[in-house]
Amino acid sequence: MELTILGCHSATPRENKHTTSQLLEVSGNLFLIDCGEGTQIQLRKSKVKFSRIQHIFISHLHGDHFYGLIGLISTFRLLGRTAALNVYGPKGIKEIIILQLKLAKSWTDYPLHFHELEKDFSEIIFENDSVKVSTLPLVHRVYTNGFLFETKSSKRKIDLEVLKEFDLLPFQFQQLQQGSDIILDNGNVLKNEAYTLPPSKSKKYAFCSDTAYLESLVENIKEVDLLYHEATFLEKNSELATKTKHSTAKQAAQIAKMAEVKQLMLGHFSNRYSNKEEFITEASTVFQNVILAEDLKTFTI
Amino acid sequence: MELTILGCHSATPRENKHTTSQLLEVSGNLFLIDCGEGTQIQLRKSKVKFSRIQHIFISHLHGDHFYGLIGLISTFRLLGRTAALNVYGPKGIKEIIILQLKLAKSWTDYPLHFHELEKDFSEIIFENDSVKVSTLPLVHRVYTNGFLFETKSSKRKIDLEVLKEFDLLPFQFQQLQQGSDIILDNGNVLKNEAYTLPPSKSKKYAFCSDTAYLESLVENIKEVDLLYHEATFLEKNSELATKTKHSTAKQAAQIAKMAEVKQLMLGHFSNRYSNKEEFITEASTVFQNVILAEDLKTFTI
Repeated sequence: MELTILGCHSATPRENKHTTSQLLEVSGNLFLIDCGEGTQIQLRKSKVKFSRIQHIFISHLHGDHFYGLIGLISTFRLLGRTAALNVYGPKGIKEIIILQLKLAKSWTDYPLHFHELEKDFSEIIFENDSVKVSTLPLVHRVYTNGFLFETKSSKRKIDLEVLKEFDLLPFQFQQLQQGSDIILDNGNVLKNEAYTLPPSKSKKYAFCSDTAYLESLVENIKEVDLLYHEATFLEKNSELATKTKHSTAKQAAQIAKMAEVKQLMLGHFSNRYSNKEEFITEASTVFQNVILAEDLKTFTI
Repeated sequence: MELTILGCHSATPRENKHTTSQLLEVSGNLFLIDCGEGTQIQLRKSKVKFSRIQHIFISHLHGDHFYGLIGLISTFRLLGRTAALNVYGPKGIKEIIILQLKLAKSWTDYPLHFHELEKDFSEIIFENDSVKVSTLPLVHRVYTNGFLFETKSSKRKIDLEVLKEFDLLPFQFQQLQQGSDIILDNGNVLKNEAYTLPPSKSKKYAFCSDTAYLESLVENIKEVDLLYHEATFLEKNSELATKTKHSTAKQAAQIAKMAEVKQLMLGHFSNRYSNKEEFITEASTVFQNVILAEDLKTFTI
């Protein structure tokens, strides 16, 4: 998995501070998570091929997480897109986008599918051969979901060099990957465990923004490889966090610790803090492996 | 009048090419004209005080002219704005904005007034002591207006130094400014024309984007000081201009010539042209005093 942060700041976009958007590459799939105003410019800076994005996940309908969506949808049309686009987001997102396309008399030339979310429990919303995406219900001022991305790696690993001597057919390689033994023409048996290794462990990325401190989240993000958790505030402004249903760096670290995640990434910083290192300092008192999100930086999970 | 171009490119915003938005300062009023995605970031770069903007004029509901509006309205709220905001734009603009504020549960704390436009003839939509704003009906793929901004300078100029000897009262200065003669206590009469000069000539700025070549526009923009006219294309792509109801640089120059404007500014450039000087070259064959719009550049009218 490769995660590129397009924007990790809260509230309003500034010249060098972009609001929430992330690009996640998983086994050849390219997912866009949230889409604040100006995301399409950040995408251009990241040099990504726009047409590769086929699924966009929107956490909630606050502007700093989705005001760039209508512009991106329009730009896809202007770029001559033909591939279908799937948008997953809170109920109401379809009405907003469709109304704007209608008034602009600018319907997309490509299929545009909306998958509106309104459940208050975790559900699988996308799945293919290589990846599964589930919602992570969060608690904020409006209906909000985080998203859990998991690779699916059911195939056992085979060593082509070692198997070369047996002159296997393609379907036999597939059988080995699926865990079966192979009976050769001479009657000999290739025991699966002797020629294969277990599948790679599934990789998991959990995106959790925006949310108040939420212990019920823990069970759904247990042992993920990377947890992106919002940390809009520091503890010195914890009353603001409570009031606005956001989290502090320390609270994010508490969730990370309870969920025993491998690494915690903080983001969604309030513009009031000039020194971002304070977020690391505060979170580290609770959970050690913590990093900061940074606009246009790519992280390997 | 001072005109700051925030963005002058068409279709989709790029890293260094912003879509349409302009800031016009007229006798202390600060008007925003159109508001493409990312306009709030351009406004920050221009160092303008956000709260000074009390009137926003939107030409039409294509994204490159208004996708930044909802973000700006939200940012005004986050900045603690209390002053009323007036938005003038095509019918439908209120529904789009209100729907998004409702779904975000983020109503503005300041009064937000919509003035929806649907007439196909020029009408006065704003007027105060110092300035008058009228619509300029344009022809595009959706309902579109340009806007004419005119200073009002009905007051005659008085020379305080010359009048010092008469010991006039404030209301008598006002009478002189309004063109009346003054009868002094001793019965002497100060003839107005002897002590005042005619009012400054009204300044006029016409904003015309987006539009097909439109001769009926000429009568409404006669002799304006500055005409901003879209020139999305060059003549070599005139078939595209016709098809998309845009203008070429030459057509913009023809309108400028017929209207006998003092200066023509071209903008709304298609991203297909790397050398903007071609727009000047083409327009100059028809009309001499032509300049190019440029993002974040300020022009005095």
